[in-house]
Parts: sequence; structure tokens; C-alpha cells
Amino acid sequence: MAENLAVMDEDEVHADRVAAILDAVEAEDAARITELMEPLHAADIADVLEQIGSGARRALLALWSGEIDGEILSEIDESIREEVIESLPHSVVAEAMRELDTDDVVDILEDLDLPQQGLILDALEDVDRIAVQQAMGYPEESAGRLMQREVVVAPEHWTVGEAIDYLRETPHLPDQFYHVILVDPRMKPTGYVTLGRLLSSRRDVLLRDILEDSFRTIPATESEADVAYMFNQYHLISTPVVDVTGRLVGVITIDDAMNVLDEEHEQDMLRLAGVGDESSLSDGVWATAKQRLPWLVVNLFTASISAFVISRFESTIASLVTLAALMPIVASTGGIAGTQSLAVAVRALATRSLTSANAKRVVLRELVGGLLNGLALACLLGLAGTLIFGDWKLGLVLGAAMITNQLVAAMGGVLVPLGLHRLKLDPALASGTFVTTLTDVLGYLAFLGLASMVLL
Amino acid sequence: MAENLAVMDEDEVHADRVAAILDAVEAEDAARITELMEPLHAADIADVLEQIGSGARRALLALWSGEIDGEILSEIDESIREEVIESLPHSVVAEAMRELDTDDVVDILEDLDLPQQGLILDALEDVDRIAVQQAMGYPEESAGRLMQREVVVAPEHWTVGEAIDYLRETPHLPDQFYHVILVDPRMKPTGYVTLGRLLSSRRDVLLRDILEDSFRTIPATESEADVAYMFNQYHLISTPVVDVTGRLVGVITIDDAMNVLDEEHEQDMLRLAGVGDESSLSDGVWATAKQRLPWLVVNLFTASISAFVISRFESTIASLVTLAALMPIVASTGGIAGTQSLAVAVRALATRSLTSANAKRVVLRELVGGLLNGLALACLLGLAGTLIFGDWKLGLVLGAAMITNQLVAAMGGVLVPLGLHRLKLDPALASGTFVTTLTDVLGYLAFLGLASMVLL
Repeated sequence: MAENLAVMDEDEVHADRVAAILDAVEAEDAARITELMEPLHAADIADVLEQIGSGARRALLALWSGEIDGEILSEIDESIREEVIESLPHSVVAEAMRELDTDDVVDILEDLDLPQQGLILDALEDVDRIAVQQAMGYPEESAGRLMQREVVVAPEHWTVGEAIDYLRETPHLPDQFYHVILVDPRMKPTGYVTLGRLLSSRRDVLLRDILEDSFRTIPATESEADVAYMFNQYHLISTPVVDVTGRLVGVITIDDAMNVLDEEHEQDMLRLAGVGDESSLSDGVWATAKQRLPWLVVNLFTASISAFVISRFESTIASLVTLAALMPIVASTGGIAGTQSLAVAVRALATRSLTSANAKRVVLRELVGGLLNGLALACLLGLAGTLIFGDWKLGLVLGAAMITNQLVAAMGGVLVPLGLHRLKLDPALASGTFVTTLTDVLGYLAFLGLASMVLL
Repeated sequence: MAENLAVMDEDEVHADRVAAILDAVEAEDAARITELMEPLHAADIADVLEQIGSGARRALLALWSGEIDGEILSEIDESIREEVIESLPHSVVAEAMRELDTDDVVDILEDLDLPQQGLILDALEDVDRIAVQQAMGYPEESAGRLMQREVVVAPEHWTVGEAIDYLRETPHLPDQFYHVILVDPRMKPTGYVTLGRLLSSRRDVLLRDILEDSFRTIPATESEADVAYMFNQYHLISTPVVDVTGRLVGVITIDDAMNVLDEEHEQDMLRLAGVGDESSLSDGVWATAKQRLPWLVVNLFTASISAFVISRFESTIASLVTLAALMPIVASTGGIAGTQSLAVAVRALATRSLTSANAKRVVLRELVGGLLNGLALACLLGLAGTLIFGDWKLGLVLGAAMITNQLVAAMGGVLVPLGLHRLKLDPALASGTFVTTLTDVLGYLAFLGLASMVLL
């Protein structure tokens, strides 16, 4: 309770701040805008830009463009980043890009149009431009795109003292690094030492004697989803990235992996709900409508299958119209059960807890679980039907259809995502539509089919 | 494609390994089990234990109990942890607990029954037991439970050289630390220095001259969800935790925050789907069925409201039975649209991109987006209805009902989670049921209501 109150208060503080900024924008009071924006973290400034309308955003940027730095640009959601970059003077963008590490430049660049990409690449210094272009050579959403190229390495024969002296003498160390990576003469990483270990060891200790157990490397072509999984599974903090020949080409740190994990979750949740995964709250009305229309249209067709099934039973319904009122109960409860199984299965596939090793057992568990819940619901609904309509046969039909459909839902909810996974497709994608179509069609079929046999 | 192939291969390797382990368990070949388990990371051993059935698990533990260490116990999913701990000799558990940092002991302890908690507390050394008991004094899911109590601090007047000498002389440093925290004489944290900065600075530099900008503290009573948000938003790597008097009591590191973020996502996804959020793939059949039954029963009641609404139109349906076949199309397409809005809104609330500052604009966007998609779907369905049934009035009714229900879905999808959030409830909880009830009831009402007015 207290924690939620705190959140609400924070929300109000935030809303008041945004209102004050909008007032200042309307008054064209650049000094006041600076006063309000200055104390904010780049991530919070990006949030403000995302949460105001595009008109206000343009006006704010016109008054305050000089203050937009690289960090703010890399925090801004990709849905409005292009718009923001377009509305900034070229010199501001160029200056902002030069401040950033190459991995952040790549992250910004990959979502832009080619002409904008060219402008930004031109603004970079030669060495950075080459680094960025090399990174862009790796597949999208790969470790190569995610990694920072700035690494801290030491030869295998160094001592703690030599490493510390080297670090003190090196003028441009990466903003963040957590290990000194040991490399062989061909730049192949062979182990790493944490900075804590380095700091707490005597100067004459050999680096190779204080290596960490957790050491592993990531191929540059590995998918970023796999990278995020690996960081979360093995509690990694930073990990060297190697090319096909095993040479060190960069390093990925946990904050980037956490970001990917967050985006993967968003994707799963939105895909499960049938929303394009590029969706964002800053999208305009047209973009929003367009992202969602495809699955709505697909659903229009799949729902027509249900309609067709029902239409085959029109004579049954005509002779007992109550059936039309009762049939959605069976179908919709099946839909909920299917969605439940589905969410558990999609999550389990994402965390790799559902594998070929236990797939059979999980399917069996779902089946028996579906049967149990089907029985419980059948008793409830069957009894209610019998009592309300004074017809035990109707109660029986309701109950039997409910059990059938709960079994279908339990099966569909786990087999559909498993099947998509086997086909090397995203299990979250389209699963929802498949499963609810299944539970709808078979729910209507079971109920009306049984009704036409038993009741008429 | 290649990446997915890699995943499948990994999955097969994993499945083969699990099969080999099960064979060894059946053959009661302890040496072979050790040979197979030894090379695995604790997290992977935990996965194996989770993915085999409970009979095999018991047999495996009986043959291999001596090798279960603290790290494995803290990796194991809480759904089977109690079972595993019960089946281990007390001495093994005690030994395992003594190896762990206090935050990991707390994490294990909080899910156990009181008698098991007592046994474990007794096994700890006095100083650790007191630390664990103090942590258990903080609210569940708070920063106080999440933090490790082992901290590395330095007085504000120290130099880099003094800090390094101190670290070299201190026998028991935490397993992982990323900052040296500066504290005033009352142990109030006043800033921190990254280890990278410490290593790259000359010995005579004052710590206070190389402080990090990112410094902030977390109250021990802060919710762990807020902690995870803060780490992700501000790219923190480790952050000091303070008590009500502002005194340093511990530190939270990003790997713990990443874990919380992952669990929060799981909770959102499962709650949205109407599954109890304690759900896990290792749960037995009974637990699975029990977690899901509540929302199924709720849905049984809400579906009965739809049934009641339809029953009011029985005479309309009796005179045109085709209506019964067509009505689910409008209802189900509304359900999909509602689920789409809902997923976007729940995600936006979780990432704090939906706030009071932009709520009005987001609601308006959803409304207009709903109208646009409603119009598109209405054209499609209306035209199809007119052509198939040769009745433009029927097409008109289908189209008008579709537009109405898309608007209801768009509104419900965003207003329901916003309302729950305002009421300080979890926006993901029960939203799905509310919204689909809304779209079902109003979908049937709009379609049948319009039909009875226009067609009869």
C-alpha cells in the first residue's frame, strides 16, 4: 500500500513537471525550460519528450535544441527518435553522436533511414565511423550489434601491478568495464579478472592466478535474445565477444543485456496479444491502428469459421433458441483456459524451462489439469443449467461440452506454441489467434453437436 | 534461421543430457551421475532438477545429495525448492547455507515453512543468522530483502592509494562489488567511485574528486519492482541501500535487479492471462489446476451475463436464426481489440510511460484508433454480410455493431488498467476478464439490439 502511494506521488510530481514544461513551451520561455529540464536524468528527459504531443515536442526542441546530447538521443524511444533527429540542427546531432560509445551510435543508426544514417556517419571521426560500419556488418539483433568495441585487455603473463600501471597510463578507458580480459598473442580471450579481485590482490600476483570461474565468450553472430538469456541464467556482468576465428572483437555488459531482456518481454507480451511488436505509446493514431489491424482481420476470418459451424446447427437453434444464449459460455471459458495454458507455455519457452526433455510431461500435466478444471466447471455449469432450465439433459450437454472444450484448450495452449517453436517461429506470434479459434470452433461444435444429439 | 537452429541444437543437447542422467538414475550409477552433472553450471543443474519428474528427482537426490551446494539451492525454482530441501540430509543443507551470501539465504528462507526456516537459521553462524533475521524484518519484496549486507566503504577523506591498500588488507571482500562507497562518520553514503576509476587513477588522487554522477540511494523499504525500474531506467550497476535514518545498510547489484525485472514481467504476463502468478512449469497437476480455476469460475459468471443479454433477444433470434451464427464475430473481434489495447496499456504502466501527464492523450489515441479499425472492419464485414446473405440491412447491422464494439474495446482496454492503477491495484490483475466481459456483453447487445430494430 505504502509503496503504491509512493508511486502515485511520483506520478503526480512527474505530471506536474510535464505540465510546467508545457506551460514554459507555450510561453516560449527557454530559460524556464532549461531550469526545469536541467536537473533531470537523460532517461527522464527522454520520457518527457515521449509523453508530450508531437506539436509540443517540436516547439520544445526548437527552443531547447542546443541541450539535446547524445545520451538523451540514445534514451529516446525509437518511435520518435527519427522525428526528433530531423527537427534538430545538423550540428547538434553531429556533436551528440561524437559523444557516444560506438554501440550506442549503432543502436541509434540502425533504426534510421539511409540518408539520415549517411549524415550521422559523416559526422563521426574516421576511427569511430569504421567501428560503427563494422558493427553494422553484423546481423540485426546480434551480439555484434550489441557489443561495445572498447575493451580492456592484458597479455596472459602480466601481474596485477603491470595491469594497474597500464590502466593508470591509458588515457581513454571505456566508460564502464568490469573485467580485465586476458588475451593470447592472437587476441583470443583466455580468461578474465574482476576489477575487485585486481584491487584486492598484491602487485606481484599473476593475473592468470586470479581468473574468474564464470568466464565464457559469445560469438558475435549470436542472437541478442540468447545473450540476454545467458546473462540472466549465469549471472554474468560482462562477457567478451569473439569473431568466427575466436578473436576478441568487443564486450557486452549486463546493462545492455537487461535492456534486451526487457524488450524481449515486451515483444512476447505484445505478440501474444496480437499487437505488432514495434508498438509504442508514442506512436501516432495511424501507426497504432495499422499495427493492430492485421490480427483483427485474421480474427474476422477465423471468427467466420465459428459462424459457419454455428450456421450448420441453425435448425437445432431454431427449435431451442436458448442454445444460442448458452453457447458462448462454453466457448469463452475455453478461450480463457487456452490463454492460461498459452501464457505459461510461452513464458516457459522464453526461459527455456520447456524443452524436449520435459515437453511430454508438461503436455500430460496440462491435459490432466484441463480435465480436472473441466470437471469442476462442468459440475457448476451443469448444475446451474439443470436448475435454471429444469432440464437435466441440458445440464448434461453443458457439462460434457465444457469438459471437451477445457481439454481442447489445455492441449491447444501448449501444443500450438510448442509447434511454432519446432517450426523455428516465435511461439508468441499468432498463438493467441490459433488457440482461441480452436476453443471457439470446438466449443460451439461440442455444445451444439451434443445438443442436437441429446436434446432433439 | 541459423540462430534458431543453434537453439534447437542446444535444446537437443540438453534433452540428450537429461535422458542420460535419467538412465544413470535408473541404473543407480552415482559415478555416472556425477560425471554428467559435474561440468554443469549450478543454474543448469537446477534446470535439470526442475525438468525431471518428482520421482526421478527424489531418486537423483538420494544418489547425489552430497554434491548439492548453496549455489544450486539458490538457483532452484521456489516451486520445488521446499521438496528438494526436505529430501536432503540436514547436514548438506546446513553446509550449503553457510556458503551463501546473506541475501541468497534470505531469498531461500522466505519461501520456506517456519520449521524449515528454523532449521536453516540454526545452521548459520551467529553473525550471519543475525544479518538474515534483520533482513527478514524488512517487508517482503522490498529492497531490504533484496540487498546484500556486505558492503565496501571508505571515509570521505581517503585517497585512491589508501582505498587500494585497504582492499588488499581486507580478508573477506564481497564476491561481487562494483563501487567503493564513501560514507560520512555516521555511515551515511555520500557518493561512490567505480572500481575502473579507482584502478586508473593515481594513488594520491582523493576519492571525492573521482565520484560518479550516477550516485543515488535506495530506501530499504522501497519495493523491489521500483528498484528494478530504477536500475533499468538509469543504467545503474550497484546502488547503496539506506535505512530510515539514512545510514548505509547494504547494496543492491544489477544482477539481482535483472532477476526482479524478469519476475515482474512473468507476473504481468501470467496475470494478464488469468493465471496465478506463483505458477511454474514444475508445479504438479493439482497446483496447476488450482491456480487457474479461480479465473475460470469468474469467467463462468461473467459469460453468464452475456448469456443473459442474448436470452433477452431470443424472439429476435427465433425469427432470424442466422443472427445466432453471426453474433460471435462481432463479440470476438472486439475481444481481440480489447486485448490489444490492454497489453499496450499494461506494458506502458509497467515501464511508467503511461502517466497522468499523457493519460488523456493516450485514451484519445486509442479511441480514434479504435474508430479507424472499427470502420475498416465494418466495411469488410458489412460488405461480406451483404453479399453472402443478399441483405444490405444485415450488412449495415454487422458494420454498425462492429464499430460500436471496437470503440468499447479500445476504451475498455486502456481505462480498465488505468482505473486499477488509480485504485492502487495491479493493472494486469483481472483486466483481461473485465475487458472481455465488456466486449462480449456490449458486442452481443449492439448486434442483437440493432438487428431487432433494423431487421424485424
